Amino acid sequence: MSNPEPSQPPPAVLWPDAPVVADIAEVAQAQPLVHCITNVVAAGVTANALLAIGASPAMVESTPEAAEFVAVADSVLINLGTLSTERSEAMRAAAQAADRGGTPWVLDPVAVGVLGERTALAHELLQWRPTVIRGNAAEIISLAGLTTSGGRGSKGVDSLADSAEALDAAHILARRHGSVVAVSGVEDYLTDGHSTVRVPGGDVMLTRVTGTGCILGALIAAVTAVHPQPLRAATSASALLAAAGERATRGVSGPGSFAVSLLDELFTLSTSTRKL
Amino acid sequence: MSNPEPSQPPPAVLWPDAPVVADIAEVAQAQPLVHCITNVVAAGVTANALLAIGASPAMVESTPEAAEFVAVADSVLINLGTLSTERSEAMRAAAQAADRGGTPWVLDPVAVGVLGERTALAHELLQWRPTVIRGNAAEIISLAGLTTSGGRGSKGVDSLADSAEALDAAHILARRHGSVVAVSGVEDYLTDGHSTVRVPGGDVMLTRVTGTGCILGALIAAVTAVHPQPLRAATSASALLAAAGERATRGVSGPGSFAVSLLDELFTLSTSTRKL
Amino acid sequence: MSNPEPSQPPPAVLWPDAPVVADIAEVAQAQPLVHCITNVVAAGVTANALLAIGASPAMVESTPEAAEFVAVADSVLINLGTLSTERSEAMRAAAQAADRGGTPWVLDPVAVGVLGERTALAHELLQWRPTVIRGNAAEIISLAGLTTSGGRGSKGVDSLADSAEALDAAHILARRHGSVVAVSGVEDYLTDGHSTVRVPGGDVMLTRVTGTGCILGALIAAVTAVHPQPLRAATSASALLAAAGERATRGVSGPGSFAVSLLDELFTLSTSTRKL
Repeated sequence: MSNPEPSQPPPAVLWPDAPVVADIAEVAQAQPLVHCITNVVAAGVTANALLAIGASPAMVESTPEAAEFVAVADSVLINLGTLSTERSEAMRAAAQAADRGGTPWVLDPVAVGVLGERTALAHELLQWRPTVIRGNAAEIISLAGLTTSGGRGSKGVDSLADSAEALDAAHILARRHGSVVAVSGVEDYLTDGHSTVRVPGGDVMLTRVTGTGCILGALIAAVTAVHPQPLRAATSASALLAAAGERATRGVSGPGSFAVSLLDELFTLSTSTRKL
Repeated sequence: MSNPEPSQPPPAVLWPDAPVVADIAEVAQAQPLVHCITNVVAAGVTANALLAIGASPAMVESTPEAAEFVAVADSVLINLGTLSTERSEAMRAAAQAADRGGTPWVLDPVAVGVLGERTALAHELLQWRPTVIRGNAAEIISLAGLTTSGGRGSKGVDSLADSAEALDAAHILARRHGSVVAVSGVEDYLTDGHSTVRVPGGDVMLTRVTGTGCILGALIAAVTAVHPQPLRAATSASALLAAAGERATRGVSGPGSFAVSLLDELFTLSTSTRKL
Repeated sequence: MSNPEPSQPPPAVLWPDAPVVADIAEVAQAQPLVHCITNVVAAGVTANALLAIGASPAMVESTPEAAEFVAVADSVLINLGTLSTERSEAMRAAAQAADRGGTPWVLDPVAVGVLGERTALAHELLQWRPTVIRGNAAEIISLAGLTTSGGRGSKGVDSLADSAEALDAAHILARRHGSVVAVSGVEDYLTDGHSTVRVPGGDVMLTRVTGTGCILGALIAAVTAVHPQPLRAATSASALLAAAGERATRGVSGPGSFAVSLLDELFTLSTSTRKL
């Protein structure tokens, strides 16, 4: 995954790439306990996506319990959506505990750069060295301290910048914090600051259903629990969701049936790894 | 929409009434950013309903962030379900910011009249002049300071009073606060205190799925962001949901498949406005 | 339902057992108001499951409102998932109010034994004598003060112990607190400390969707509102969910479509009681 010429597009990873399939099979086998501190909008679909691939989600978000639970969890997801005072404190405690205990953790900096409180919190959380940072282009650009081209900025949780535009920011962020950075968009880009990969696929319908970005953060957390290389783990999760998103569009009538089909496809792809 | 004879039933508005279709097309075009402070039960379906019609939902509900976010939002929804101390404060801050900044906002006074804390809060929020108040008959009657006929009152979030019964209360409330009032029920009634319209349709299955009233409040918020006349905007949202609810019953086996179909139909009706 | 010989397996109860059908018909007739203080992950599906069987859910979880609402509710569900400081206080107030007012209430001690704060809270809540305690084997064993065989413990919200293993703990807990104890698993076991019944059925897919245990707690709360014998009420709810879970697997492609079908089947079974 070394890319000496930056003018070349990064290599693409697509399901059923063998390492991806192996990682998803390993999740189904190991059933990692994924500790989620996430927003109230996506909490249900996030838990269901994790269950669909055989992981074991647990949403624990009060301050004393969050740090305590990190000790038994296999990985941690911290998602800044629908921030509250109590959940903010729990995030600090959990990130610190994950860093100290060597538990892999994923930061999903929802709407960072738009709002002061969560922007400050996101920067504070970086000190505890997230294993993976997953965001859309605007969020990654903001977190790296850059600004988007043409003065366009983040608009709530939707990205107005293309994921390729955020590549520079992703490299900076990855090298500065020793994290893998996953930029979500029409194509996903993932980098550890040295190597970069690209995950095409997915479907525009993924943007018409709430929580698909949050789901990706959770799936990344699940795979980091079973594979020690964060770039590979994040790539596997991304390739799985892209494949499930593409397949989920078949025969659906709109975003309601797509959301149902997405969970079915995650389950089907995960189950299929036993045979591949 | 003038109704000189109060004994006459208000005129009915039905999809595909041309102004309704034009407003829904405009939402899909403008993709308004709808800031929601809503309950944890309906947060997911509310976001999905807004995404289905092309609006851009953002749930921001901590105190400092809520007021800050109103400045970038195109409209605001404040829904009193699953009230918490922190969310109550965020609601006050957001309503005040919306009033000062001229951002349209919708008040959904869930279960007002049943519980002391939220009844007081709802009355307090009225000082910031909601653009639209959406509730069931019992909630509107309570908010207007009247009592329901036969001593029947609000029973949690379900309405025990017919929406037509609440017309007097709706007129009083609309004139007192300069708001449009939308009374939901078997038929919806909408009034600015002078003109009144009626939106028939929908389906009883809408009462067997949680959050359909909350969804209506959110859809109203989305349309108020793109059309300056609140009565027309609220009517368009109501007619859209009634049409989607009717169509969504086709071929479904129960409330689970109905909820899925409802999102699909909102998407399909919204998408169809490009051709009408 | 007397079981003199403990070596005998407890009698099985299966839909359409006549008392079960009668109880579910009574819920649809009486439409009990079920006050839920539950976690943010399962709040939506819990409300939808209650609506599917004709009950009237209301999620009220702030401290002053929770106790106030118990006075008008027909039964109360207290579920410890996604605990927060404010919701903990509301739970204490609601449990106390339910005990004083004679309102039946259900305790769902999610992940008790894993985390210090909620373990302490669960034990504190027991003083207000829950009508029914519903949990998986590990939760019931922990709440009874025993340990699981082979040193296996509760792993988040998933049970690592078999429900039959928890029978001793269930008897102890039931007798100590005068509660009915419902142990969920491949088969459900329900006991009042004297009589015990067994509810087979369900499907493994119930473990691949979030909130099915939470749904059972809510359904038990609904039936306790209409039938004075808690063991019978809990058994009816359990048999209903097992039957719905079994039927819901027909023709589904994965956990997404299963979750939809589960709500449809709850609705269909409830509706069918009018004809049985």
